[in-house]
This record gives sequence, C-alpha cells and structure tokens, in this order.
Amino acid sequence: MAKTVVGVLGCTGLVGQRFVQLLAEHPYFELEFLAASEKSTGKSYGSLSKWLLDTTIPENLKNLKVKNLEDVDKSEAELLFSALPAEIAKEVELKYAKKGFKIFSNTSAFRMHSQVPILVPEVNPEHLELVKYWEKGFIVTNPNCTTAGLVLGLKPLMEFGIKNVVVSTYQALSGAGYPGVASLDILGNVIPFIEEEEEKVERESKKILGKLKNKKILYAEFEVTASCARVPVRDGHLESVVVELEKDLELDDVKKAFSQFRALPQKLKLPTAPQKPIIVLNAANRPQPALDAYAGEPNRARGMAVSIGRLKKIGRKIRFFLLSHNTIRGAAGCSLLNAELALKEGYL
Amino acid sequence: MAKTVVGVLGCTGLVGQRFVQLLAEHPYFELEFLAASEKSTGKSYGSLSKWLLDTTIPENLKNLKVKNLEDVDKSEAELLFSALPAEIAKEVELKYAKKGFKIFSNTSAFRMHSQVPILVPEVNPEHLELVKYWEKGFIVTNPNCTTAGLVLGLKPLMEFGIKNVVVSTYQALSGAGYPGVASLDILGNVIPFIEEEEEKVERESKKILGKLKNKKILYAEFEVTASCARVPVRDGHLESVVVELEKDLELDDVKKAFSQFRALPQKLKLPTAPQKPIIVLNAANRPQPALDAYAGEPNRARGMAVSIGRLKKIGRKIRFFLLSHNTIRGAAGCSLLNAELALKEGYL
Amino acid sequence: MAKTVVGVLGCTGLVGQRFVQLLAEHPYFELEFLAASEKSTGKSYGSLSKWLLDTTIPENLKNLKVKNLEDVDKSEAELLFSALPAEIAKEVELKYAKKGFKIFSNTSAFRMHSQVPILVPEVNPEHLELVKYWEKGFIVTNPNCTTAGLVLGLKPLMEFGIKNVVVSTYQALSGAGYPGVASLDILGNVIPFIEEEEEKVERESKKILGKLKNKKILYAEFEVTASCARVPVRDGHLESVVVELEKDLELDDVKKAFSQFRALPQKLKLPTAPQKPIIVLNAANRPQPALDAYAGEPNRARGMAVSIGRLKKIGRKIRFFLLSHNTIRGAAGCSLLNAELALKEGYL
Amino acid sequence: MAKTVVGVLGCTGLVGQRFVQLLAEHPYFELEFLAASEKSTGKSYGSLSKWLLDTTIPENLKNLKVKNLEDVDKSEAELLFSALPAEIAKEVELKYAKKGFKIFSNTSAFRMHSQVPILVPEVNPEHLELVKYWEKGFIVTNPNCTTAGLVLGLKPLMEFGIKNVVVSTYQALSGAGYPGVASLDILGNVIPFIEEEEEKVERESKKILGKLKNKKILYAEFEVTASCARVPVRDGHLESVVVELEKDLELDDVKKAFSQFRALPQKLKLPTAPQKPIIVLNAANRPQPALDAYAGEPNRARGMAVSIGRLKKIGRKIRFFLLSHNTIRGAAGCSLLNAELALKEGYL
Repeated sequence: MAKTVVGVLGCTGLVGQRFVQLLAEHPYFELEFLAASEKSTGKSYGSLSKWLLDTTIPENLKNLKVKNLEDVDKSEAELLFSALPAEIAKEVELKYAKKGFKIFSNTSAFRMHSQVPILVPEVNPEHLELVKYWEKGFIVTNPNCTTAGLVLGLKPLMEFGIKNVVVSTYQALSGAGYPGVASLDILGNVIPFIEEEEEKVERESKKILGKLKNKKILYAEFEVTASCARVPVRDGHLESVVVELEKDLELDDVKKAFSQFRALPQKLKLPTAPQKPIIVLNAANRPQPALDAYAGEPNRARGMAVSIGRLKKIGRKIRFFLLSHNTIRGAAGCSLLNAELALKEGYL
Repeated sequence: MAKTVVGVLGCTGLVGQRFVQLLAEHPYFELEFLAASEKSTGKSYGSLSKWLLDTTIPENLKNLKVKNLEDVDKSEAELLFSALPAEIAKEVELKYAKKGFKIFSNTSAFRMHSQVPILVPEVNPEHLELVKYWEKGFIVTNPNCTTAGLVLGLKPLMEFGIKNVVVSTYQALSGAGYPGVASLDILGNVIPFIEEEEEKVERESKKILGKLKNKKILYAEFEVTASCARVPVRDGHLESVVVELEKDLELDDVKKAFSQFRALPQKLKLPTAPQKPIIVLNAANRPQPALDAYAGEPNRARGMAVSIGRLKKIGRKIRFFLLSHNTIRGAAGCSLLNAELALKEGYL
Repeated sequence: MAKTVVGVLGCTGLVGQRFVQLLAEHPYFELEFLAASEKSTGKSYGSLSKWLLDTTIPENLKNLKVKNLEDVDKSEAELLFSALPAEIAKEVELKYAKKGFKIFSNTSAFRMHSQVPILVPEVNPEHLELVKYWEKGFIVTNPNCTTAGLVLGLKPLMEFGIKNVVVSTYQALSGAGYPGVASLDILGNVIPFIEEEEEKVERESKKILGKLKNKKILYAEFEVTASCARVPVRDGHLESVVVELEKDLELDDVKKAFSQFRALPQKLKLPTAPQKPIIVLNAANRPQPALDAYAGEPNRARGMAVSIGRLKKIGRKIRFFLLSHNTIRGAAGCSLLNAELALKEGYL
Repeated sequence: MAKTVVGVLGCTGLVGQRFVQLLAEHPYFELEFLAASEKSTGKSYGSLSKWLLDTTIPENLKNLKVKNLEDVDKSEAELLFSALPAEIAKEVELKYAKKGFKIFSNTSAFRMHSQVPILVPEVNPEHLELVKYWEKGFIVTNPNCTTAGLVLGLKPLMEFGIKNVVVSTYQALSGAGYPGVASLDILGNVIPFIEEEEEKVERESKKILGKLKNKKILYAEFEVTASCARVPVRDGHLESVVVELEKDLELDDVKKAFSQFRALPQKLKLPTAPQKPIIVLNAANRPQPALDAYAGEPNRARGMAVSIGRLKKIGRKIRFFLLSHNTIRGAAGCSLLNAELALKEGYL
C-alpha cells in the first residue's frame, strides 16, 4: 500500500514537534511538508526553533524548507495535521477543510462545532461518521490534553451509569507550550489556574461521551466539575478523579473494567494504539508522572496508554488517580491515532 | 499576669522546631524546657539537630540541655506541647496526662480517643469542654495538617448543610518531616500517595465538625472523599475542594460567609489568632503556596490564616482552592492557639 | 533634614520593583514618581505588572500614575534610580545626565564609560570622585549581579596581591528578570551559559578594583576567568572562587581578612549598609542560596551582606564559595547604597 | 565464545541496579548471581528494593534469590562487579581478591592502594598491567563519578603539558545514592559541599593520569583544585573546568584534540565503548544535564560519552564545561568497560 502523503501546519511549537517526531517512519503516512506562519516561511526546519523533545530532530526534515501555512496546495497533500494556535486555526482550518483538505487538528478552535467530532478512537470511534456529512474535506479534532486522558478513564465506567465526575488535575509544564510557564512562577510552587482549561474539560468530555443520533451528537448528561492546576513536572498530566455511579459495584469489577478494556484501535491493530489502553497499577503510590508518563509499548505506542491507580470505593463513588502523557495521548499522538482510524475505516 | 511555664516534648523534629520558634517571647507562655528521646538527653539544643526554619534558633535556647522525655517532672511545668512521633506519643502522652500534665499534642496517637478533642479554636472551641471530664491532666490535639485547613474552609458552610466533600490535595514536602521525601523521588514529579493521610482527613474532619452532646462528640454525617498527593513545594498545603450543599446559594453568599468569618479566637484576641481566619483572594490564579503560605498578620499570626480562591458554583456544589501552612496552622501554630484558648477559658 | 525626592525609571521589572520596595520609608529618600515606557504611561502602578517580591506592593504607590520615561522633569526630582533595559538606557540615561539629573543606574549601558564609576561603596568609594568631572548631572552604576558579590570577596584580598581569579557561578533565576528563563528549560537542569555575563564579570571587576589616578581609573591587572551557569534557584548567586595570591598566607589570615572587613559605609552607618559586609560561615556546607541569600541585618540591610564559606588553601591559591543576593546586593540594593554614600559625601 | 559468568556484589543500591541494567544481554558476560548484605539474603531481587532506573528490571532477574555477600563461591563466578558501600567493601573486596576473584569495583575503598589501578580505558589502559603483580585475583577500580568525566576531558590535553586544573562541579542527585539528598535540602537550592568529594577528585585524577613505571604508578604532578556542589538535577555531573597548559595553543587545536580523540576501547570496539568518547558541542548553551547526560550511541554506549562545550581561551588557560553521566560513565558503565578491556587483553 502506498503511504498517504501528509503535512503539518504549525510545525514549530511543542505539539508541532511531537507530530513531526511521531510521523517519522510511519507505516501509513509520509510527512512531506511542514508549514508555519509567515515569519518562518522559506527557512529550513532545523534552523527554525528549539527542538524540545528527547529524541533528535529527524535528519531528513532538518533541511526541509518550511512553507507558509497560507499557501498549502492540495496537489501536495490532502491530509493535514494541525498544531496551530487557536486564533490562527480559526482562520485557516475551516477554509482548508472547505477546499477539500482532511484536517486532523489538535487546536480547540472547532472542537465544539456540530459537524466536528472530538475523537478518541478507543472512546467514540463512531463519531467519526460526522465527517461523512461534509461536502468535501473535513476537520477531526482530538480533545484538549486533560480531557483525552479523562475520557479514557470514564469510558469503561459508562455502562455502570455515570452520575457525576469531580476531577482535580496536576498538569505538566509542557501543556503550556514553549516558552510557556515562567520558571520564577512555578519553581517550588503550584498554580491553581489554567485559562479556559476547566471549561474545556467539562464541555469536551460530555461531547466525547455523548451519543451520535441522526447525524448529531447528543451530549452525555452527567455533571463534570474540573479543578485544574499546574505543577512543576515536565510531562504527564495526573488527575484525581471521583466518579459517582448509578450502580453499586464491587471495586474488583471496576478494576476489571479498566484492565480488560480494549477497543476498536486495538482490534484494528492501529500502529499508534497501545495493546492495553488502560494500565492498572497496583503499587500504592502510582501512577507518577516521572515513572509512568510514557506508558504504552515502546516506539509507536509509547505515551499512548493511560495509567490508573489508587482505586477506592466510597459508597457509590469510585476514586482513582489517572495519568496520561499530555503531548502524546493528549495531543499529537491522539490526533495521529485518529488519522490511522480514518484511514483504516476508509475515510481518507 | 505571670507567664505559664511550658515544655516541648519532641523538640528536635520539624514540628518541634516550629513549637520552639513560635513560643519565643510568647505573651502567655515561657518555654523553660525541651525534651527528646534518650539519645539526645543532656546535649545542648543548639548542637542537636539541623535547624530547618527560616528564622534562626532562639539564642536563649541554644545552650539549653535537652531532657529525657521519660523524666519530665511536674514541678518544672504542667503544660507540655508534644511533637512526638505517634509510636512514642502512644506510650508517653497518656501516661503524663494521667499524672496531671496538660498536653497539647500534634501527634495522631490520641486524636480519635473519645475524651480527646481535636481542636481548631475557630471551628469547634466548645469541644474543649471534654477536658473537664478527665480526672486530672488532659490531652488536647490539633488535626493533621491537611484537615486543619480543610475544616476552616468547611466551618462557614456548615449552616448551609454540607452533604458531602470531595478534596484533592497538593501537599508540601515539610509535611513529611525531615529528612522526609527523597529528592530523587519528587524532583519534577508528583506522588499521589501519603500513608494514612486520606483516612485521617476523612475521620478527623467529621469529628471536628461534629456536635458535643452529653460529654460526647457526635460525628458530622456528611461524606468526605480525600485524595492526597505530594508535590515539590516546600511549605503550604493546597487543596482543591468541592462541597455539595443542601441549600442552593448564590456564589456571593458563600464568598461573604468566608470573608466575614470570625470566631472566638478573634473575639478573645488570642495572640496567635489572625484577624481574618479566612482570606478570600480574587485574583484568578490564587492561592499559591509560594505566595500565600504565610497568610496572616506578620509575627504571631503569620501562617495562621487560610487563603481561599477560585470559587465556582456548579449546581449545589461549591468549588474552591484552599491553602494553609502545614507546619503552622496545620501543626504547631494550631496547637499553640489551642493552649491560648485553654488558658483564656480557664482550663489551665 | 528634608528627604531628597527621587524617582525610578523602569519601575515595572523585577529590579524596578526591588527599587520600589527598598525605597519605601527610606530615611534619606522620598520616592515620588515612577516612570516606565510609553505603553505603561498614565496607568496606576498597582495595575501595571505582576508584583514579584515577597512583601506586598507599598500601599501609597498602588494608585500612583506611572509617567512616561521620556518626560521626566527636573522640577520633580533630580535623583533618578534606573532599572531600564540596556537598549533603552543607552538612549535615555546620558540624555538625562546631561540635563543635570543624577542617575544611579543598574543597567550595563554606561558601566564601561570612562567617566562613570561602577560603584560598590565597600570596595571603591573613592571612584565616586569621577562624578565631579561631569559638567552637570552624572551617572553612577552598580556592577552586574555576579560581579557585585565577587568584588566584595576580592577586596579584602587585594592587599595580599591578587594574581588571578577563576570563578564559576551558580546563578539564580531572578537574575534573568521576568518572565526570564522558561520552566521547561531549567526544571531539573543547569544551563551553562548566560549571555554576555562572563565578559561583564571579567571587565567590570577589573574596573572596580582599579585605581583612580588623575581622574581616570587604571584597571586592576589580574586575570579573571568567569564561567557562568544558571541553576533552578529563585534568589541568590553562588560563586565558586579560586584566587591566586602573591603572598603565601595562612588560611586564618584570610578568614580574618574576610570577617573583620569593614569599610566606609559601615563607618558612615549608611541605612542600607550591613554591619558586616562579609559573613564567614564555618559550617561545612554553607553558604546555600536557600539559607543565606538574605544575609545582613533585617530590614534595610537584608540581602546586603555576602556570605563566604568553605575556605581552603592550595599552595598560594585560596578557594571559597561566596553567595550574594542578586537583586539586592547585586542590583537595587547596591544602587541605593551608592546613592546613600553620594548623599553623605555631599555629591547630591 | 562462551560468555564469562559474573556476579554483582551490592546489587540493591543505585549503582548496583545500573550494573544489573547494563549487564542484561551483554555479549561478553552472563550475570548469574546477585549478592547483598545479610538482611537481603534469600529474598528475590524483584522484591528487595525500589527499582530506580528508567528501564524496567530485567525479567529473568526478578525472581533470582539474592545471596549473602559473605558467601560467594568461586565455583559460581570468578568475576565480580562491586557496588558495595566503602565500609563494607573494605572488609570484603580484598578478602575475595586474595581468594582469586577478579573484582571490578566502583567503591573507593581500594582506589588509592598501590597495586590497584583506577582505570578509565580511554585514559590509562596501560595501568591494567598492575593486576599482573597480584598473586591471584585482583581488584580494578573505576574513579569516583566526578573524576571519571574529568580525566576524559584532561587526557587529550596531556600532550600540551597540564600545569594545573581548577574544576567546579554541578553534581546530580543520583550521585548521592538513594534515598540520598533530602528534598527539603535541595529543592530550589545548591549545596556547595559533598563529603570527601574534592579530595577524591584531586588525588584520583593525579593517579589516573600518572605514569606506570617499574610496576608503580608515578602520580601526575599538576595541581588540581576541585570545588564540588550538589544541584537539583537527576542525572549528569556538569563541570566547569579551567586548565592551564604549558603550550600556548590555538583554540581550534584544543577543539580538534577533543573531537578527534579515540583510544584503545574504540580500536578494540568494546561493546560499552562509545564511538566518540568526547562529543564537542558547538551550541552556545551546551552541555546541559537534561539534554546531554545520555550522550553516546543508543543501547550499550548510552551515557558513556562525555560532552564538552563552551571552549574558551584565556592566555594559556583553556576553559570548558564538561558533562558526563555519573552513574554510567562515572560508575557502573566505566567498571563494565574496564572488565571488557580486561577480557579482551587476556586478563580474565
């Protein structure tokens, strides 16, 4: 099978770099061009910005000239991954989609649009159907970094009836991009505020866990209360989650629901899908960002599994800590998995 | 008025040092002896252990010989502050109390004892009455560091009917004592586990907010779900709190209830009592440990006020972040305020 | 004595805020206006920027309208403290000095100017004479933050003949201003590079320790090799210093030279002068930024003393670690002490 | 070629774990037993202690029963790697060596013994000859973690005549073992003291760079002045180095000497030898622990290369920053490379 040619819009930031990293030697996709804002146009990718990841910048892309994100031509690629800032995405993504491009976007600009799915392939693969109703082209988004992990933890509980969710977060610095949080603000400190984050968690999780009916998504009806804080951690969003269920379960049933959870990406063996989307840790003091952020099989699925630990039952409430890698499962990795699903399901 | 002579049991650890610091030039109390375990007996306090606080060790205590905690004599002092480790406290405190000593203890050993109040003077001063029913001597405890802040935030909400509380914590390193947490474990990390802490928060808060009736404390009946995590912060426990109320309030009423809250210690003008026990912060990103841990008037009440911010209403739930200094309001400072109250109320 | 009215140019940054903090209720100076760049003009100081220091912003300045730094009038104040960025200072300071303003500047723009002293009152008070040779007005600078501490440690050794100096630094985050260093860059890391810093240390220390002769400064002739690195510390620059001397001293002589060092500011009892400019610490593991950055008497001289420890002798080389507070002794505090000296010496 | 069976003494600590990690699937050696102190005897390795490294504990060793370090029998293995604490090593290593065991030790106990080489295969492979003069068995040590990196940086300069060396260090937490440094001591701080470290650097580097003559090592004669400090970094010791040379070189010659440096391990293609022992970085702000600690080819040589940057010339002095991984090149990795050399050279 010939690989599908793809490009990345907004290739210079932290999530853009993750896209570039994850697309290197991908079995389905061939990354052939990179685009960014005007001030980067024409420069070689290697010269443009600080490479922020733990692997080195792919050799074959170092000298690639970065294109202007306004001038992408369909003859070059029809599939675009987008890590654009929301304000720019708002101008650009819909325009391109209407021209026929297929866009897998990490940005929040169109997440709440009624024709755009917020897709997590293990959670709501059926929402992908929405793209059928576009005339040509489409936008598929992944959730914001905190929601991506959360909905993976909620999905196996859906069958027991979720009444409400209270989540408090311990979010990593990389979630704020680069340069992001000033060191003077966060060294030895916690900042209990991330702009618009709680609102995103609350509305996106209800859309993702909603039902597709008559070409529309009916939002899930449980209440979500999110409290988001930044901590001095490099990668990995930790979340303390309390879910009130309708059913009164044994804790073991919940544990089983988590550890045995498999979904469509696992069945389809998508390259970026971890064998176990949820890893249940029994050690008393896990998951920890420093130890568990990169859970998932080495290589393609690294950082794609969420880790869950410290399960406890209080009446009909289930409490656990959940950890997911915010720029992989919570951003570029999820978007890539979305594209893999779309390809396998014949939407590309 | 002559000052009451006092001693500190367990003077070498982090909380013991706070007692020593806070008792320096105290208007009611004169610290005249220090006691610790056998291995420290007979040595000068200044030589014994690493001084861990931001002020220097009081000059007049540097050369004080430390006594054996087994050999304290009532002729020296009847009032003892205790910062002993729980296992030692279990052996020692009750023995001394039965000999007639009046003990204000930070340790958990007797907190759940039916004759021992867990006292926070702004919250349950009436529980002090329990000490009347001892034959001679008594033990008064303060709550564990996380609970001390929490109950101050819950107290003003009691009149609106608390149905349940979900709290997630971001706890400082000093809460683990010294040497405490290994740097390799916590640098750039969060550890979502503190032994026995969640259990303490859950049971102590219900006792503190319970009612004294017929010489007994009837525990408060709401449900508390605590999730406790350690973060790389020096001082100040931050808590994300969601309280479900029976009444449907306006957010402004809650704000007022917090900011106008005054209690007995304020009325009695106890030396360690802050003028406002709760400080409501309006800035979007507060409270923060690095900025707000020492809230309260300079000198005696420094670190005794709790800070509350990010108030939000979701149906009948109220969400806020609360911060309190874990070794002052959450330990030695609270114990000292307890003793001040006891003195003013004639229990000493 | 009536207080001298003063203003601060560049009042919004980290050093500007230190000036504001240190000038509050100053016995010689009355801070009456604040100036910043055009975009801040006309706004109240309290609304302008994030207050970054551990004390609260002075009440009386909160509502003061900030002036445009281009429009300062001599009728308002003749003495200006400057914390301007170097590029702006280059345009503004000399212009004002020529109009007759007396400028005490923290910026590097004119430090190497032949008529401008880099003044550290304990080290080279005689260099202040240079201001006599200006027609009207003048500029007095303090050294960059690393040099300010270093020259205080070198001064007592000058009489023994310094042959060369090798210094490696461990510099705090606040030295980079705000927002300064990105948290992603420095969390759990050291960055062995600070732009232009090594050059500044090398040339400024030789000017400061030089001799004034015939209205000119003859630079000291020893060699300085500086290696500057940033560490994840909030305040306090630590320096590892190796000085090769001409004389072969006993280590005790060096210790004495440090601990007995007193200079003109101590004799004049300048308000911001610490009683002991150099504090020799005997503990094996000091000085440490977290413990010693604020050395010096509480209030006015807090953070103005340098701490020296770990003295060692290797042949004719003396090795020690030196710590000084980079935004107090290394910036605003030194500049203020310069102005105090100038006032007492009749230059204002 | 059959693999040589080996064991690890002191397998539970941080360096012991590195030995275990690096010996997994080694082409020359087969790790067949693990030994530790009495209290661990008979327990399975996986149950014994906290695994502190970034890879998981090798599956085949999880259930291996740990032996008592006092009861190792030569029939099991003649080659022992030792990561024992110095006090225990002092009792045990020489005893075993005299019984005929060949010991490659990371501990300091016998480093200064006249018959024991401190070996860094790229620097002084000829010193290995010393083991010939033992009756049976022998001890080969690697240097302490700071020295291991330093001597690699000094070796290429030896031909230009080293007059003296001034080194200041920025040492990682893992160098102190586990639990090691208390988080309360080092969070946001630098501690300018590591017990005995400076003495080790000074004496070990002169022994390593000394000449073997008539079965004895004549120490190098230049002067070394070390100043050692601990910083809040996980792995990777950074060193600021100033070397005074006899020759007046061009900076480019030094650069070339570093980047073209190859030695015996490279010629012999030892499995753990990096292709380039020294990597010269041209970026202005490198090397950095967070980015460069693991320099060296992936897999076996990961963390075995030292990185050098910020080369500068001041007269006859050369200044650079050097970084090496303290528990790989500075401990277990170096010891393993020593054993590989010994095997290839026929000493096993």
